[in-house]
Amino acid sequence: MNNNLVISVDAMGGDKSPRVVIEGLAIAIKKNPDARFILFGDEAKVKPILEQYPDLSKVCELRHTSEMVRNEDKPSQVIRNRNTSMYMAIDAVKKGEAQAIVSAGNTGALMAISKLVLKTITKIHRPAIVSIMPHRTGKYVMLDLGANTECSAINLAEFSLMGDILARNALGIEKPRIALLNIGAEEMKGKEEIRQAAQLIKNSKMNIDFRGYIEPHEIPNGVADVIVSDGFTGNIALKSTEGTARLVIRMVKDAVKSSFWAKLGIPFMLGVILKIKKTMDPRLYNGAMFVGLNGLSVKSHGGTDALGFSVAVNNAISLVRQNFVTTIREEIEKVDLDELAQEAIYDVY
Amino acid sequence: MNNNLVISVDAMGGDKSPRVVIEGLAIAIKKNPDARFILFGDEAKVKPILEQYPDLSKVCELRHTSEMVRNEDKPSQVIRNRNTSMYMAIDAVKKGEAQAIVSAGNTGALMAISKLVLKTITKIHRPAIVSIMPHRTGKYVMLDLGANTECSAINLAEFSLMGDILARNALGIEKPRIALLNIGAEEMKGKEEIRQAAQLIKNSKMNIDFRGYIEPHEIPNGVADVIVSDGFTGNIALKSTEGTARLVIRMVKDAVKSSFWAKLGIPFMLGVILKIKKTMDPRLYNGAMFVGLNGLSVKSHGGTDALGFSVAVNNAISLVRQNFVTTIREEIEKVDLDELAQEAIYDVY
Repeated sequence: MNNNLVISVDAMGGDKSPRVVIEGLAIAIKKNPDARFILFGDEAKVKPILEQYPDLSKVCELRHTSEMVRNEDKPSQVIRNRNTSMYMAIDAVKKGEAQAIVSAGNTGALMAISKLVLKTITKIHRPAIVSIMPHRTGKYVMLDLGANTECSAINLAEFSLMGDILARNALGIEKPRIALLNIGAEEMKGKEEIRQAAQLIKNSKMNIDFRGYIEPHEIPNGVADVIVSDGFTGNIALKSTEGTARLVIRMVKDAVKSSFWAKLGIPFMLGVILKIKKTMDPRLYNGAMFVGLNGLSVKSHGGTDALGFSVAVNNAISLVRQNFVTTIREEIEKVDLDELAQEAIYDVY
Repeated sequence: MNNNLVISVDAMGGDKSPRVVIEGLAIAIKKNPDARFILFGDEAKVKPILEQYPDLSKVCELRHTSEMVRNEDKPSQVIRNRNTSMYMAIDAVKKGEAQAIVSAGNTGALMAISKLVLKTITKIHRPAIVSIMPHRTGKYVMLDLGANTECSAINLAEFSLMGDILARNALGIEKPRIALLNIGAEEMKGKEEIRQAAQLIKNSKMNIDFRGYIEPHEIPNGVADVIVSDGFTGNIALKSTEGTARLVIRMVKDAVKSSFWAKLGIPFMLGVILKIKKTMDPRLYNGAMFVGLNGLSVKSHGGTDALGFSVAVNNAISLVRQNFVTTIREEIEKVDLDELAQEAIYDVY
């Protein structure tokens, strides 16, 4: 392996591993023929499938692991077992053998081991879980989606910076518009830490386009490129969005099925149905990124298929190409949030 | 006015007042011919419109007010002016002239004046904003939607009780299933106050069917009849839901419009389109209720039309018929949450 772009992969994570993982990598190499992979997993299970993909085999190194993290395992347990495919895959990033790790396994475990092994970037207080999501005319970056139930103003300010870097690198937006998720647009609305974060960002040396607060119903209109919140709020917003999208589509389907006339109209609508399916396909937005660590950790949905897994891998690769971790490290060096935080807290009162 | 069912109405609240307010009442009396109304508003503006509805005029008493609450007014200002149509309409409930007040005006003002004038029910610590929303197979009650940015375990337990009473009375569900909104189903997930509330409810004498935690994406499946959260989280979930529903429908519309074939299919789909429009019509879910006060205060959306306003009025009437406020008072007497709260907090640690 003399190539620089190496991704470490937990072959045992996810509901249909290792098959979906390997098939996903086979799709990913078509877009990224220069990428190399280190696969961690049970050789007896992984090797027979891998051999079916000769092109992929050439760029994969398989390392045998006898143990794996299960869905029901608690973070406190999994961090003590260094022999699981997930732990070893993350460890490969720490050792510098790979630049990012992708796993479809247990989210809590992946976050716990990633934090323990990779460690948070100096000067960043907390890592965040980030996703890229669709709005009416494009995509936006949203963080934190669940790593931190409660967040201070400093955490939120740091997320803004990381989100800015991510939107520039992953979405190619030159000057991303950053907004804090809140329940009103007025300055005095919402929680104390959100108001403090707004002050902190405004007073900081962060060179970002901060637009103030955004309410959840405005997100789909594409008025901001980065939405920042604590992990509890972000997770609530994300899951409300997912549930509602599924509800509306289900209601349309049920209504069409129950109507004789509507069924006759389906042939005319096929193109539209395909188009909407494609825009809303959750597989295309797969791959939540854990950012703020010394190395990138990407979590694929456990129930996704090969296409979904390939999207998570491609996300990881594209951020590695942009030197994402180094960029965060450099940008955070330029601002001194700790010093400013005291001022901000003072200003609010 | 010798009839018992009297609703007090702020004729000046909302974007298209007083016309929409009066037209809304004219619709509401068709369903509720025994209801009487006291209208507070500018006589010069209200009277000419009211005279166009002779049936309504017979059950309306118009009281002239020269001032009104504007959208940009701050709660701290409006509570000092007792001459606005909103203040006087609320005051009529306090005086016992009416059992509920309906306004389409400024939400913050309505909450502030309602709290000041009507006062919170003894033993209830905080009032909540409640809405009735659609899920796949029926409706559910959701609270708090924004009255309290932060909530203690006791607040959440009280909301559960009020939600239970509301679901029984407004939705006719015999034994409503109650759930706390959280980011995971496991016992240790989420915020401290949510875990404490779960303990508190389990240990209390509240005779409710408590089902533990619910994640936002499960709400549309109709697995609970009452969803309880703090006002910040509830508002985030509500607005995420609204935004996503609008986004999906907009995407479908855009896709159909841009396709020649799809446009040909529209005639077949008309029935389905109407059916979905009807199920999702926000006007049918209009009327957020402020509960936990000595008297019911109902907030109509400011931008709604006559049909939407009539739904808010009908909601108010149906809760008054069920003696909603008295029921809350009686049920909260039976449980001693303050005493239990200490225990619950102890149990969590």
